[in-house]
Amino acid sequence: MAWEYINREAVIERARELDAHQFAGRRIGRLHGVPVGIKDIIDTADSPTACGSPILRDRIPENSARIVQLLEADGAVIMGKTVTTEFAFMSPSKTRNPHNLEYSPGGSSAGSAAAIAAGHVPLAIGSQTNGSVIRPASFCGIFGLKPSAGIIPRVGVLKTSDLLDQIGAFANTIDDLALICDVLADYDARDPQSFAMPRPDFLRAINNSNRDQKAVAWIMFDYMDELDTDTLAGFEQIKSALSSNVQQIDARQSTASLLAAHKTIHETQLFQNLGSYVKTDRKHLSAPVLEALERASSITRAEYNTAIKVRDEAIEFFQNLFLEFDAIITPAALGEAPLLSEQTTGNPVCCTIWSLVGVPCITLPVLSGANGLPIGVQLVGKYADDEHLIETSKWFLDILG
Amino acid sequence: MAWEYINREAVIERARELDAHQFAGRRIGRLHGVPVGIKDIIDTADSPTACGSPILRDRIPENSARIVQLLEADGAVIMGKTVTTEFAFMSPSKTRNPHNLEYSPGGSSAGSAAAIAAGHVPLAIGSQTNGSVIRPASFCGIFGLKPSAGIIPRVGVLKTSDLLDQIGAFANTIDDLALICDVLADYDARDPQSFAMPRPDFLRAINNSNRDQKAVAWIMFDYMDELDTDTLAGFEQIKSALSSNVQQIDARQSTASLLAAHKTIHETQLFQNLGSYVKTDRKHLSAPVLEALERASSITRAEYNTAIKVRDEAIEFFQNLFLEFDAIITPAALGEAPLLSEQTTGNPVCCTIWSLVGVPCITLPVLSGANGLPIGVQLVGKYADDEHLIETSKWFLDILG
Repeated sequence: MAWEYINREAVIERARELDAHQFAGRRIGRLHGVPVGIKDIIDTADSPTACGSPILRDRIPENSARIVQLLEADGAVIMGKTVTTEFAFMSPSKTRNPHNLEYSPGGSSAGSAAAIAAGHVPLAIGSQTNGSVIRPASFCGIFGLKPSAGIIPRVGVLKTSDLLDQIGAFANTIDDLALICDVLADYDARDPQSFAMPRPDFLRAINNSNRDQKAVAWIMFDYMDELDTDTLAGFEQIKSALSSNVQQIDARQSTASLLAAHKTIHETQLFQNLGSYVKTDRKHLSAPVLEALERASSITRAEYNTAIKVRDEAIEFFQNLFLEFDAIITPAALGEAPLLSEQTTGNPVCCTIWSLVGVPCITLPVLSGANGLPIGVQLVGKYADDEHLIETSKWFLDILG
Repeated sequence: MAWEYINREAVIERARELDAHQFAGRRIGRLHGVPVGIKDIIDTADSPTACGSPILRDRIPENSARIVQLLEADGAVIMGKTVTTEFAFMSPSKTRNPHNLEYSPGGSSAGSAAAIAAGHVPLAIGSQTNGSVIRPASFCGIFGLKPSAGIIPRVGVLKTSDLLDQIGAFANTIDDLALICDVLADYDARDPQSFAMPRPDFLRAINNSNRDQKAVAWIMFDYMDELDTDTLAGFEQIKSALSSNVQQIDARQSTASLLAAHKTIHETQLFQNLGSYVKTDRKHLSAPVLEALERASSITRAEYNTAIKVRDEAIEFFQNLFLEFDAIITPAALGEAPLLSEQTTGNPVCCTIWSLVGVPCITLPVLSGANGLPIGVQLVGKYADDEHLIETSKWFLDILG
């Protein structure tokens, strides 16, 4: 249920080619022979890429997304396409949580997260516009990393929101995440968010032996009131383990405006990118997507401009905050995965603000809840300083032992 | 005379941005702050790229070529556009040879080679369809490397011949060449020659301490009769220094068919790519380009197919030859640079066959001629085993001391 499409012959043929390449004595890549799952909103040449929608059921891209080409150039075997929710939005997919099949794996990168948790592949790619990497990783008990916006190029990936869409990855270790993000980090001028500067070296951060004491911030937002009691208890333990390394900040006052800004930008841009389907394919859109698109059509220019202004101020606020703190420590989700019967992929609210400002986030599977399901601890870092976030995450894992 | 266009403000602004990036403690790229010259057939966003032709005088590309993006992503400063001959073909450009201004720098990557020899920049990019990297490097007394076809992507570079166009680089040391080729080597599916496999690691080859004895081939072609006497004398000395490491092979018989195959493919594809200018811009085409395009229009399908067959057989022949030899050693040009008054960029014949089969070639500035001008020694390696060519070149330079 994690996979939308696998071309068995093509996978075996690719593995044979890689063997031949190696036997010829040629240099092998950083991902030589490693199978990777690709979220089905990411183009793969000559294989279906339907973005979770019946509208694109027969769509076969001519060219692979830039990130798929980067993976292939480093020797990866593209195992196939993982299930995504419809247009990477909120409607549940057919994928289940490998820890307990009665529960949701989260969304929208449901298949990628579940494929890692189930041990199908060691690496998979997802994307996050709101909470679609960090949340499913948390629910599935794996590591998930969404680097800073602009570090991984989005050419050949479904556009839902140019300002918010970001690529991320899933793995069973933080080291594997660093490896694949090094492969994916690249400049491509066709992506307006991509920048012509050197990328972080994620693996260098992993290997950096500098484990100085760090200062992390625990920020109070309004939505913290909705945290499950087991999540809250887990974080109390973590805060006491961090002792004086953690400091509390109150940002309750800005919660509502930040969440609203994200929603306004997301829905406006979703409408710009997918709005035409309301007319042409209305009957093939699920209710949540249709409602979002219809809400979007009534957002005014002034409302959108206000949202952009809130975002700009938030970017500056967090830029300054990270002059004092190495990272923010915060839940990856409100609690454990919801039951499938609840018909939701879970609340993304713990990720929304970080997606809004484009900072790097990682979730570490270190807690578990009342149902025996995993709960992730999210660390959030300074924009474009992803190396420092990785270093801080290693330091944090060391403290927890 | 080496530069077609430099935007002084943009260059300084870029350098400032790179400084700020470094001072912010972010990772710096392999070419951090290094100025690079770009042949003017390679697109650079927002700056003129006229391909040496008045027809494209006002052309400003929207996007940079993939290789320019790769350079920028590794911290390079694009210094400007270097002079190319018209459409990278044979007509002389305005650039002169820095060793003696009365002489040609070669073509078509005239400005790139001259800019290196004159010390304007440490690195420059060119392209070779026949002999446009190796020949100007030889004439200008610098190092030039054209990796195997398909290793460096050509997206955003003037197309003259899909089968023959290849990207190369110029530098004052072999180490610098290896560094820049590592940056340029990348997969891009938009280039039909590009392949989804790991690239050679050029710097690893430089640093490889394995300096086993090598076997090199000296291949006799018909055109060797035209070598200048000083070139011939230089190679006699080199062959005696190599002693039993060099072995002579006679390929005189196939010379004519190989050269003819290159010409047929080159002119046919040149016509496909630029043929429309014969009608629309005839008066802005130089006589050599016009003649080539007019000859091309009478090449039959059968002649083209025969040329492709000759090329395929040659590819196989050299693939097998490199089972026995580490490299071919051969002149980079027939002799020193010609006088400007001769109205030629020099004969590319010493490069034609290697461009035809797409194997990697390097020229080393180790000889000089009767006029005191440089003569390059060309080493040619096995397809896609560029690392081995670099190792063999280092071994060869060690022998010469």
